[in-house]
Amino acid sequence: MIVVMKIDASEGNGEAIFSRLSALGLRGQKVVGVQRQVIAVLGQVFPELRDELSTMDGVDEVIRISKPYKLASREVHEQDTVIQLSHGVKVGGGHPVVMAGPCAIETEEQLYASARGVRAAGAHILRGGAFKPRSSPYSFQGLGVPGLKLLRACGDELGMPVITELLSVRDVNAVAEYSDILQIGARNMQNFVLLEEAGKTGKPVLLKRGMGATIEEWLLAAEYILSQGNPNVMLCERGIRTFETATRNTLDLNAVAVAKRLSHLPVISDPSHGTGHWYLVRPLSLASMAVGADGLEIEVHPQPDHALSDGAQSLTPANFAQLMAEVGSLCNAIGRPLAAPQPALA
Amino acid sequence: MIVVMKIDASEGNGEAIFSRLSALGLRGQKVVGVQRQVIAVLGQVFPELRDELSTMDGVDEVIRISKPYKLASREVHEQDTVIQLSHGVKVGGGHPVVMAGPCAIETEEQLYASARGVRAAGAHILRGGAFKPRSSPYSFQGLGVPGLKLLRACGDELGMPVITELLSVRDVNAVAEYSDILQIGARNMQNFVLLEEAGKTGKPVLLKRGMGATIEEWLLAAEYILSQGNPNVMLCERGIRTFETATRNTLDLNAVAVAKRLSHLPVISDPSHGTGHWYLVRPLSLASMAVGADGLEIEVHPQPDHALSDGAQSLTPANFAQLMAEVGSLCNAIGRPLAAPQPALA
Amino acid sequence: MIVVMKIDASEGNGEAIFSRLSALGLRGQKVVGVQRQVIAVLGQVFPELRDELSTMDGVDEVIRISKPYKLASREVHEQDTVIQLSHGVKVGGGHPVVMAGPCAIETEEQLYASARGVRAAGAHILRGGAFKPRSSPYSFQGLGVPGLKLLRACGDELGMPVITELLSVRDVNAVAEYSDILQIGARNMQNFVLLEEAGKTGKPVLLKRGMGATIEEWLLAAEYILSQGNPNVMLCERGIRTFETATRNTLDLNAVAVAKRLSHLPVISDPSHGTGHWYLVRPLSLASMAVGADGLEIEVHPQPDHALSDGAQSLTPANFAQLMAEVGSLCNAIGRPLAAPQPALA
Amino acid sequence: MIVVMKIDASEGNGEAIFSRLSALGLRGQKVVGVQRQVIAVLGQVFPELRDELSTMDGVDEVIRISKPYKLASREVHEQDTVIQLSHGVKVGGGHPVVMAGPCAIETEEQLYASARGVRAAGAHILRGGAFKPRSSPYSFQGLGVPGLKLLRACGDELGMPVITELLSVRDVNAVAEYSDILQIGARNMQNFVLLEEAGKTGKPVLLKRGMGATIEEWLLAAEYILSQGNPNVMLCERGIRTFETATRNTLDLNAVAVAKRLSHLPVISDPSHGTGHWYLVRPLSLASMAVGADGLEIEVHPQPDHALSDGAQSLTPANFAQLMAEVGSLCNAIGRPLAAPQPALA
Repeated sequence: MIVVMKIDASEGNGEAIFSRLSALGLRGQKVVGVQRQVIAVLGQVFPELRDELSTMDGVDEVIRISKPYKLASREVHEQDTVIQLSHGVKVGGGHPVVMAGPCAIETEEQLYASARGVRAAGAHILRGGAFKPRSSPYSFQGLGVPGLKLLRACGDELGMPVITELLSVRDVNAVAEYSDILQIGARNMQNFVLLEEAGKTGKPVLLKRGMGATIEEWLLAAEYILSQGNPNVMLCERGIRTFETATRNTLDLNAVAVAKRLSHLPVISDPSHGTGHWYLVRPLSLASMAVGADGLEIEVHPQPDHALSDGAQSLTPANFAQLMAEVGSLCNAIGRPLAAPQPALA
Repeated sequence: MIVVMKIDASEGNGEAIFSRLSALGLRGQKVVGVQRQVIAVLGQVFPELRDELSTMDGVDEVIRISKPYKLASREVHEQDTVIQLSHGVKVGGGHPVVMAGPCAIETEEQLYASARGVRAAGAHILRGGAFKPRSSPYSFQGLGVPGLKLLRACGDELGMPVITELLSVRDVNAVAEYSDILQIGARNMQNFVLLEEAGKTGKPVLLKRGMGATIEEWLLAAEYILSQGNPNVMLCERGIRTFETATRNTLDLNAVAVAKRLSHLPVISDPSHGTGHWYLVRPLSLASMAVGADGLEIEVHPQPDHALSDGAQSLTPANFAQLMAEVGSLCNAIGRPLAAPQPALA
Repeated sequence: MIVVMKIDASEGNGEAIFSRLSALGLRGQKVVGVQRQVIAVLGQVFPELRDELSTMDGVDEVIRISKPYKLASREVHEQDTVIQLSHGVKVGGGHPVVMAGPCAIETEEQLYASARGVRAAGAHILRGGAFKPRSSPYSFQGLGVPGLKLLRACGDELGMPVITELLSVRDVNAVAEYSDILQIGARNMQNFVLLEEAGKTGKPVLLKRGMGATIEEWLLAAEYILSQGNPNVMLCERGIRTFETATRNTLDLNAVAVAKRLSHLPVISDPSHGTGHWYLVRPLSLASMAVGADGLEIEVHPQPDHALSDGAQSLTPANFAQLMAEVGSLCNAIGRPLAAPQPALA
Repeated sequence: MIVVMKIDASEGNGEAIFSRLSALGLRGQKVVGVQRQVIAVLGQVFPELRDELSTMDGVDEVIRISKPYKLASREVHEQDTVIQLSHGVKVGGGHPVVMAGPCAIETEEQLYASARGVRAAGAHILRGGAFKPRSSPYSFQGLGVPGLKLLRACGDELGMPVITELLSVRDVNAVAEYSDILQIGARNMQNFVLLEEAGKTGKPVLLKRGMGATIEEWLLAAEYILSQGNPNVMLCERGIRTFETATRNTLDLNAVAVAKRLSHLPVISDPSHGTGHWYLVRPLSLASMAVGADGLEIEVHPQPDHALSDGAQSLTPANFAQLMAEVGSLCNAIGRPLAAPQPALA
């Protein structure tokens, strides 16, 4: 931590900083600049110190140097985390995977139609929402536990791990019972109680970036899960809020590359929510693979124009199959071939 | 809802829209434009329809006309909502109120020192956090239920209603038992389960705007609470995420004026979180009153440079007293005098 | 400047930094932290150094300490700048002023109707655009030099200084000949050649903040003008781009307070462009005064529903008169009364 | 254009709209909704009409239907524009090209070292700045016309078309004389006089997206150039301003895909400015090609740690050569092979 004093700060102002540091068991080192007093803080600082020092007389700015997350950082854990799932599927470690399925589970028929389609096209993991976070209280809110059971049964039958969203601490046990991966949505990225509870289950967690969250805050949210002793965290970029309205969100592929650099955790990209338009899912999926993502999460619905949720951004199974072929070629070309598809069903 | 077709859409594309509407019990009306087919949708539309229609062949864009929230809208409830609290305090309806106190309750001494200070200066409601949402798992997380009890006792002793944050559905009963107002923080604005549970308590709820949330999403979040039959919702602007880094957030006073226009709910402004710097709290408090806010929420700590949370944005009791005098004069000048302060303690 | 090395940087990496600094005539000071090498750079740094050092092996981050602007900074020029205009009008220094008039000068009748209206209501400076920056090439582009002449004549007749936008270096001489203040629009805030040419005229310049510009970039843009030896610069906040679409822009009143703190230059607020809706001009004008702005710039049109530019955000003369009364009361209450209005015309 | 009336608008309010439209030679069509009056405007509308109607009594909102740009739109010009340059290089039409070279031309040696490096690696077009837009007046501002001459000579000697930035209308003739492509920078995207003058030269223009500009505003800026009768416009995405600070800007690859869909103009991606970090240029270049860009613009400096401008984001020639190999493979895999490199020099 570096304390930059105002140009007109007095000697006494600087001395007060040294006393305060000393009282806290820390040390200050004077940096002899030309224009102003600058003090480096030595020792193990705590997060609040920055705020506290910044209110002291004569202080212009307090600058943090070390990263506020530890367990999520590549500095302390250099090798890529690889997460093992059922049916031999692994996330992280060089072979990208694809998670696909309907936004919301509506009926058994709809779920199976989507699931068979995505499996046949080579998807590795089945997604489907049973608890849906909806901006409006008047929108379809999901089937709840019966939806979870349908998803589990479908995944078992087709031999695919499944992922579904955990919306509330109320539902932790139910979701952990039926799902292989707990998805924490963008709106809950800083629902810290939920992060802790998800961490405690020990189950793999996919943590979406909040639409107004910096990369640092995203990694700090991951730290909440990791600090419960659960190392199985994957990050998911799904678009941030910007001034641009031509897309529903702005899928931030810079963030995928930055997160891969700062952290050892796998990073998934969600071009369906990231763009909000089915016709942009193809180009942004290809770009996500090219930028180095460890996987994709894509919405596929047998009849997008009858979907109860997010129809505008859902692919048909036929569109998805074409996409998978293109993604496969690209991944081969960049030396990161897709994970092998699940074996054909008997 | 208006369906705008592509320039090269066929007659058949347009007919498909009419059939789909008809199957849903809706009607379409052709708008005979010069360049392209435009179809107005008549009847009671459901939120998903926009997404569904937008995936149909030949559709360029689907534009919504009616507002997606109802109970929160001034169109259906013209008069300002006024919320009655204990000790005769009212929020909304022309006499702004001030909520003040420490960001986090740390000790009994610290809470009482802050509370006595803000009461003496004319604050109407006592704030203090017992459950703290912190970006880092390594930061102070609040005292929990013992903190709630301290707050309640302090409010009772000083004759002030109290407000504290509700962080999780787990804590709904405890917070509702001890607090007059349930505060939903910015990070939980779209924690829909929490909104519903807060709504069910029937207690007044202060709903902060998410840092990446539009005004429309904010009003929809209020709608979640209102639709539980709880009319006692107040909105709180606390700064949004923008590219500017000189302030912690960008307090959006435009939003205060817009929310007052679109909705009948009281709107509070929080310049402490909105700016993140104690020296900006004064000018932005005055501006908040001038723009028409129904109240302020301000952090006051007896020793900001020793605060366990948000010290950089906390006022000292002395600074707060000076602020209250200035706010009072301004409110008189614009014809919206502050609510009367609590009577002197015996 | 502080160079933060990576955790795994070698001793040699650190030594290379010291050599480089030494070759540049600068000095490095080692900050002995626990976890990593940190080097403070001593001496007069140049702006490019940060980029250069950040590409060297083992460097994690290079952090700037001193502010990049000098002439615009309150650190080197503590007292408020006061700009003297014709007819005894002053900008800066405690008595706010109001600039008002039509967005675009359309006809002599329209200009005079607006000008007489705003003068009667107490406006101090007459605004009117002759060269208009329009997003679309198919929109009305302004009257050009004939418009400038109309504005000059009208200002002379009514005894008011005038302000108009300078759009291109091509027009510097014409605008400087006819106008008291040269306005640089938001879209030209980083048109550096234009800034320099405006600076060379010696005329007062009003510099609008770019809609995607940070406060620091805004002050650096002012520095371009000031460094030509022209001290007569006033800043103007007119709204930034955020994700919110309920307002045309997000008028950033935090920035007004921050700019007043960082700089000695007067700061004007433009709630017409800042919000884009005439019905928001009133509350945001009051808030602008409350937050400490040195003046307002407001669009007034005799018939907003027939305006050739920005009708939606223009006040009628009657609305403006009412606004001025309210602004006047508020300014009195906060101890910063409006500058005296121009004396009645003979 | 659709006029949506307020719920409580009177019949007379609606009639006033019809009269106004009729006076303008337009027609209104009533859309018989359930809750409110909605009027579709038929006929050739002008851009200002929206603002004008929105100020009329009883109007809630005026919604635009047709796109405000015409010449730039794929609706009126379906086929991809292909721009012919010297030395047989073409931009647009399926074979991506790479523009590379130093950010700023510093010396003949530096320019040739960079140029030989990028040519050997397969770059098609040589970039280099002679006039530099710098945030600070104290930064290196470029060599000016002598820099242009160096660039021209170097391009001629190496058999490559050249591109350089046009900063001011003052320099249009000089830049048009020496450069094959006129680059309009992000800060000048809405410098409309400059756009018109660039258009008049008839020379190919590369138009960078402003950092706070929507895709629609970007296409409208292109329209300014096109409407001068100059069809040779290419767009360039170079990152937008968002709240994220880990990258200098947020390269918006969604915008590349959207611009390709809405317009027939070639779209180039600039990952150097888009990210601001040399180590992010590789992944974002690959992603740019995958998303469908027609080319890349990349900064290459023989010694980035001694660059006078943008060193932090510049590649070395060696890094660039490796990048070109990877880009080439990826482009082959997606069926859009890079344009053939220039033939070996004698």
